[in-house]
Parts: sequence; C-alpha cells; structure tokens
Amino acid sequence: MVSSDLDARLSEPVGGHSLDVQGFEQPRALMSAIHEDLAPLLDLAHRPVVSARQFEREQLVQLCRLAARYETQPQMINRPLTGKIMISAFYEPSTRTRLSFESAWHRLGGDVMSITDPLSTGIAKGESLFDVAEMMNHYGDLVVLRDANDRSVYDMLDALRIPIVNGGNGLDEHPTQALADIYAILKWRPALLYPDGCAPVRIGVIGVPERMRTVRSLLIFLAGFAENIRELVVVSDEDEPFSEGQREELEKAGLALRVTDDLDAVLPTLDVVYINAIAWRGDDYESMGTRYRLTAASPLDPKAIILHPLARGKELDRDLDDTSHNWYFAQARGAVFVRMALLSAMLKSYV
Amino acid sequence: MVSSDLDARLSEPVGGHSLDVQGFEQPRALMSAIHEDLAPLLDLAHRPVVSARQFEREQLVQLCRLAARYETQPQMINRPLTGKIMISAFYEPSTRTRLSFESAWHRLGGDVMSITDPLSTGIAKGESLFDVAEMMNHYGDLVVLRDANDRSVYDMLDALRIPIVNGGNGLDEHPTQALADIYAILKWRPALLYPDGCAPVRIGVIGVPERMRTVRSLLIFLAGFAENIRELVVVSDEDEPFSEGQREELEKAGLALRVTDDLDAVLPTLDVVYINAIAWRGDDYESMGTRYRLTAASPLDPKAIILHPLARGKELDRDLDDTSHNWYFAQARGAVFVRMALLSAMLKSYV
Amino acid sequence: MVSSDLDARLSEPVGGHSLDVQGFEQPRALMSAIHEDLAPLLDLAHRPVVSARQFEREQLVQLCRLAARYETQPQMINRPLTGKIMISAFYEPSTRTRLSFESAWHRLGGDVMSITDPLSTGIAKGESLFDVAEMMNHYGDLVVLRDANDRSVYDMLDALRIPIVNGGNGLDEHPTQALADIYAILKWRPALLYPDGCAPVRIGVIGVPERMRTVRSLLIFLAGFAENIRELVVVSDEDEPFSEGQREELEKAGLALRVTDDLDAVLPTLDVVYINAIAWRGDDYESMGTRYRLTAASPLDPKAIILHPLARGKELDRDLDDTSHNWYFAQARGAVFVRMALLSAMLKSYV
Repeated sequence: MVSSDLDARLSEPVGGHSLDVQGFEQPRALMSAIHEDLAPLLDLAHRPVVSARQFEREQLVQLCRLAARYETQPQMINRPLTGKIMISAFYEPSTRTRLSFESAWHRLGGDVMSITDPLSTGIAKGESLFDVAEMMNHYGDLVVLRDANDRSVYDMLDALRIPIVNGGNGLDEHPTQALADIYAILKWRPALLYPDGCAPVRIGVIGVPERMRTVRSLLIFLAGFAENIRELVVVSDEDEPFSEGQREELEKAGLALRVTDDLDAVLPTLDVVYINAIAWRGDDYESMGTRYRLTAASPLDPKAIILHPLARGKELDRDLDDTSHNWYFAQARGAVFVRMALLSAMLKSYV
Repeated sequence: MVSSDLDARLSEPVGGHSLDVQGFEQPRALMSAIHEDLAPLLDLAHRPVVSARQFEREQLVQLCRLAARYETQPQMINRPLTGKIMISAFYEPSTRTRLSFESAWHRLGGDVMSITDPLSTGIAKGESLFDVAEMMNHYGDLVVLRDANDRSVYDMLDALRIPIVNGGNGLDEHPTQALADIYAILKWRPALLYPDGCAPVRIGVIGVPERMRTVRSLLIFLAGFAENIRELVVVSDEDEPFSEGQREELEKAGLALRVTDDLDAVLPTLDVVYINAIAWRGDDYESMGTRYRLTAASPLDPKAIILHPLARGKELDRDLDDTSHNWYFAQARGAVFVRMALLSAMLKSYV
Repeated sequence: MVSSDLDARLSEPVGGHSLDVQGFEQPRALMSAIHEDLAPLLDLAHRPVVSARQFEREQLVQLCRLAARYETQPQMINRPLTGKIMISAFYEPSTRTRLSFESAWHRLGGDVMSITDPLSTGIAKGESLFDVAEMMNHYGDLVVLRDANDRSVYDMLDALRIPIVNGGNGLDEHPTQALADIYAILKWRPALLYPDGCAPVRIGVIGVPERMRTVRSLLIFLAGFAENIRELVVVSDEDEPFSEGQREELEKAGLALRVTDDLDAVLPTLDVVYINAIAWRGDDYESMGTRYRLTAASPLDPKAIILHPLARGKELDRDLDDTSHNWYFAQARGAVFVRMALLSAMLKSYV
C-alpha cells in the first residue's frame, strides 16, 4: 500500500492516558462511605425536578451513592428503561447537557426523541408550551427541557402528567448540573458527609451567583453541607453579586458567605475552586471576560481541586488539564452517572 | 437545606387530572363494537400510504380497532419491530407529527433516524428526491415524509422499494392525521359503524377544504360513513371553499354538503365541530384569522364534541380545555395508537 | 368510499424492480473468493480510523468479506452492540454518510446520538473540539466526525479515549466512502484479489484528485491492487490535478497514472469509470460543472461499470440508471454493510 509517515496516534489503540480521578477508586470510596438506602429516593418517583430546593440532603447523598454504583459497574446487566421514551427538548443550544441526558437514558435501555432546533417545531408556528406539554404526555415517558425563558418549565408543568427535568431555565437554575458538581465534591472528600468528618473546607466560587444558573443551584445544595464548610467565598468584581434574598436564604441555611474581588489573595486559602465564565444578561449569554483566570501559574493550594461545568473559555487554561487540580474532567464524567441515578429514581427503574 | 416556598406542583407526583375521554373506557367500547379481523389489513403490507383514497372502509375500521387494542394495553409485551429502522424525514417543520410517528415506532421496538433540517442534508447540495429515495432503500425499513411540495412524495415513490407514509404533502393530504380524527370520532360514537346504528349526526368543519390537507383527507374518510351523517357543514367565508372536483367527488360518495359563513347560526345544530386555522396559500402557511373562534361561550350543543388537529392558535380558546367538549386532547392521544396500528399493518408486525 | 383514478403505484406493494447487482449473487461470489480470516481485523480494534493509509491490504480484503457476509444475511440473529452508543457528529451538512453510519450502528443493535447542526452546540459558544472530545469520552463508545476543517479530526484525537471515524475532513480524506468504493469494485471482479487473477483493468477517475476527498482515499486503496490495474486515468481539464507529492506517492506504490482532458477518447478503453462532481475550493464545495458528463449515449465499453459516491448532479444522467453500467446504486447499498464490517472490527463485536 501507499507508504507515509503515519501519525503515531493512528497506529495504536486509543486510551490509556486518563487521570486517576477518572478511575474506579473515588466512586468506590464514596460507596463505602454511604450506607445504601433507596427509601429517600422513592419520593422522587414521578415527580418533576425543577429546582435544587426540592432535594432533601439524604436524597442527594443516596443519588450520589447510586451514581457511584453505576460508575463502578459500566457493563450494565439489564436495561430497566426498555420501551421507555425520553423527549429531549433543547430549545436553547446545548450539546453537553443534551448528550449526557440522552447517554444516561440510553444506558438504562431507553429510546430518545430529540428536539434540537426550535425552528423545526410547531413553536415556530406560535404553538404554546402548554399545548406542547399536553402532546408530550402521550408521546413520551419523561421530558428534559432547556429553555432560555425561566418560566417555560413552569408553563409546561401545568399540562404535564409525565415527569419533567429542568435542564437549565434561563438564569434561574440547572439542578442536574449541580448534582454533578456535588457528586464530584463528595467523591473528592466523602468525609464531608459526616459531622466533624474532616477539617472544614473553604470553597471559592468565581462568578456571579445572581446570574449563573449552575451556581445558583449548587449553592443551594452546598447549604446542606454547611457544617463542614468553613467559608464560601464568592470572587466577583460586582458589589452585590447576589440576587434579592439569595444571600439571606443561604446564610439562614448556615453557609458562611464572603465576597471578594481579589482572586490571587484568596486562592491559596481555597480547597475547592469553582469557576464558570458564562452568565446571563437579559435573555442571552455574556462571557464574564478574562479578569479572573486560572492557569498552572495561579497561586493554588497544591491540594486544591478545580471544578468547572464546561464548556470553558479563556478563564480556565488548558495547562491545568494535566495537573492534579483537574477535577473538572471527572466532574464531566460523573454527570452521566448522576443523571442515570436521578432518572432511575424518577422512573423507579434501577439497574 | 435551603428553605423556600416551594411550588406546590413540585412537591407531589405528576398526573391525576386527565379527562375521562383519555381513559380506557372509550377504546374498550370501540373494541367491543368491532369484530376483530386482520385480513383487511394484509393489503396494507409493504404498500405506500399517500392518500386517504387508498383505504377501504373496512381497513379504517380494523385499524381503529387495533389502535384501541394498543391504547388499552400500554405495556407492550413484545417489540415486533426490533432491528427495524424508520427514516423520519421532515423537510417541513413539525414536532407533533414527527414525534407521534417516532413514538409509535419506538413503542413497537424499532430504531429511528431523523432528518429535521433540510439545510443539513444533501438536498441543500441539489440532490434529487429520487436519489434520496434510492439511498433510503438501503438504509431503512420505512420512510415518513413531510414536505411542503405536494409532488415530493410521488417523486420518491418512483425510486422506493420500502414503504413510505405521507406525513403531510403541501396542501394535498395528511392521511394519518385523518386516521387520528376518524379514530376519535369512532371512539366517541361507535354506533356510527352500523346502518341505522344511531341517529344521523351533523358534522361541522370550520375551514377551507380546498387548502387544508387534514380536512381534505378527513372528508374522504367521512364519506365512508355517509349513511350515518345527516349533513357535513363547511363553515367558511369563501364562496367556493372546495377545490375543482372535490365537492362533486364527495357528494357522489354520498356526503350531504352545505356551506355557510354563519358559525353561530349553525353551531347549536352540530354534533361534531372540527376546527383548524392553518391553511396553505402558495407554498406557505396562512392563518385563517380569528373570524371563526370557539370559546366556552360559543353556542355549542351541550353534548357536542370539538376536534382540532393541533397546534392551535386563537381560534380555539383554552377555556374549552376543561369542558366535556374537549375531545381534541383525546384525539392527540389517539394519534400515537392509530399510527402504531398503521405501522404494524404496513410491516405485518403486530404486538 | 370516495372513488378516484388511484395512482397505480399506490395500489400494490413496493419493490420488485431492483437491479441484479443489488442481489445476493455478487456478495456471495466475493465471499467464496476470500478465505475468512478475522486476525487482520484485530488490529483495527479500538483504533481511530482517519486515513486510508492506515489500512493494510489484507484488512481491506477481510473487511470486504465481512461486509459481503452481512449483505447476504440481512436478518441479523443477534445485536452485538446492544447498549453501545455512537455519537454521530456532522458539523458539515450530510444525509447520506450520516444515515449510512447510523443505519449500520442500529443494525448491529446500538443506540445513536446525533449532532446535525453546529449552531445547536456548545461550539457556537466557542467551545474547543478538544473539550468536546473529552466530553464524548464519557458519553459514547465511538464518534463519527464530519467537519469542513481537515484538522478537526486530529484536534479531537488528542483528547479521545474512544475510537473516532473520519466521515470526511475538508478536502483531505473520506476513507469509509473509499471502503464502499473498493467493496463495489471487488464485488464486480473478485479476481482482482489474485496475482494474474484476471486481465489487468483500466480505471478512469473523472475529477480532481487534489481536491476530492473521496478520490484521495480511493486512490490510496487502489494502489494496494496495482498489480491488476493496467492504468489509472485521471480525466481533468486541470494541468496538474494532483496535490504536492500525491502523484509521486501513488506511482511509488505501483499505480500507472495518466492524465487526460479528453473524456470521449478514453472512455471506450475503461473498465471502471469513477465520477464525482463535488470538489473543495477553499472551505466550501464547488461543482466541477458539466464539461464532463456521462449519459446513456456516452461511448462506454458495453461491459464497463460506473461508480459515483453520490449525491449526483448533472454529470451523471439518470438515463444510465436502468443500464448495466449502473453500479453506483449497488455501491450505495454496500456502504451500509462495509461500515457495519468496519464498526464491528473497531468494537470487536461481530454478528
């Protein structure tokens, strides 16, 4: 055959260079730390999932345990959602969230019908979401909705008799991304589960809790673990990065909050750094710019971990990818398993 | 966790407020009224379905019986289309019809490949539908086509060796929507099946039979039940709302037709009111405006039922949703089961 | 029911008019000509497939044999890819290639997640392909990528730990289309497999090898059968239709190359005529115009076969479809089976 200097990457099997944090060790440790109890998950059956506020702490914990079980047994032995149909309605562009939901559903054995382009739908002809939801009752078994309008999920809820999952509603919430975040944090330090289980940690969030839906949902979840969180530091150059009542609600729940605009000063003191550069302004995205940026040269505590919901922009340098700070890839990996756990609970269909 | 005034809809399972007409009672009554006989359906095997004219009355009746059987046994016990692939080609925007076909196919166990955006296809490079169809012969087991050009389905037919279903071709026909309509009507009054089975009914159609494809197909089907239809009243402000030869064809088949522009005068006399505000003008949609509108205040006979193929605009007020006139949601629900029945017959694969 | 002059095509089952070359005879003859040996395919397991250069001749031969086996047993008896997910990422418009990959995967029992619109993805928000690939590691088991940028597949390769198949990268390569081409050629004349197996053939390629990715990949494959190819004639009105080093590489591998701009003069001497009118100019398509055109009136050798990767434009007249020159439909049909064979090998999952 034709000879050539064939690229070395083409001449051998893929794989082999994954980080340790993507292996089985972390989820196994988390499984060991939690006594399995599916009872709290029964309350999630056939319920809509719209807000992080709906979850009891014990539900979070058991969802994470179930996710860990799925993560450590990638070869499923049965397909409990065979014959069930997910309607994956992404009226706002997305690949990551859509694919992770669809992947989770497929791995449980179900079929998927996708709506990826609002212009291809009856909504382009002026159809109301109420009517769309009424239709979906008959055509599927569960709906995942992403929409730039934060009210859309509630409009559909009025008509739905099948469960819906909020896959991001405007600037309001993104509870399943926050589930993936919590799952990553608990895999990193299972001792957070127990009173005095570990030295209290300091968590930094770079961004604007007022307008970042993933952060909004995550802070609600973190409040459930306040006893082991020494401080939650918001890094922002806005004077008041919280929405009305948000700060009060979180402090009442026990979180010690602080706001600073000096990233480099606070960075060495943080155990977990959560960064996200996408926020909402009006009804569209805005990038937070590159005032706050993490690179391998940033003054991070050597043991600190970085989380990022991805997709990333310039705020998170790729030179961090090969460092032990990189937990954002593990976080992305866990997103599938934690969604499998949630969908299992919602349909009472466990592997 | 964080406390809040959690929306009551989030704290309990979904479901529970469906109308009676969406339960099992109506399809069970229809099943009882029809002696099962799959023989007429054998002629549908491996045949294209393009026009309502292709169906014999007994085929319609047996398809509706099979749909009723599927509707009353939502938990399928086998998946006869396992390994079969539907190509769902919607070159004209749609959600409702596409999802109902895909849902029907999935529930029978098959896989689906969707084309939702003409711009993503080779047709954007100038490929002919003849060549597309030749390709589909090898890649799938059945094609569903929606296209704004009424000739497209015939162009593909020249090359296809697998069955095709017309999912709406321009202003011409939409036979499977009409199947869903007939299924709803027969569930409402099974006695229409028999000579002198009931007092003859008066059916009103608000719209323009010339340019509404769902109406065009439905009228052809209704002609098969002319003996129990006292009168078919078309409500329109056009002098001649029929296309050339359409009126003659229907009258020859036995339908007593009347045209009026006075909705309120005729409304109290109607047993069934079919309304649709979307018609074709040239190669695009037009809304029929709001001259004719149904609301809870309309002078409907108390026992009259309303049908609408959906999606709706202002012509059908949501205040009718919770009344007993609302059969349009049941009609939408039935659309999946009647398509399952049709697809079963076309592939000779019954559950 | 309503009477009408029902189109004759609607009143009988589809099918029945396929060409002989689409039957079982050709693949059965190819199977007989090759001794089955899956060993060469083991090297394809879990490897990326980006370039035609990666394939050893014996791998090509065994892939074609496996494809022939699949083609002759359309009813699969098991579904080895059950639970496996293909991510079908077509950032450049395509129907044919996308559907043939998805069909192949479904027929092996797997599930598919499609990306058909770049604007619906995180890439529209500026996400890098490296990050997209990292995500895909966790959400799927294999990626098919088509992208107008020839570097994209390599960018993803840096992050991928699951196999990727190049479904067309800019003007560079399209190796699986070339597999379908070779499969068609070997079905036509299995004797090409053996030294002095047949009189050497003359193959004509109408087009520009520099800028036609399907041709670029095919020529590399054909070099593996140079001993039975008397001459490879490129028909082009460009003085130098090869890219830098391309001609030298092919000649070194044994192909006897000639360039001519006179189609009619060379046509009577050709055994195989490969035509394609789509080439790349900059980062978009260009049509090669209609200077070179094949019709039933072209001076073809009576036994010559025509191949075309489709979709076609005016360069290939439909009046050839019903002649014995038409092997392009068989070529399109084989594309599914040869992709099934490749995917089987890559995932070590044979039917």
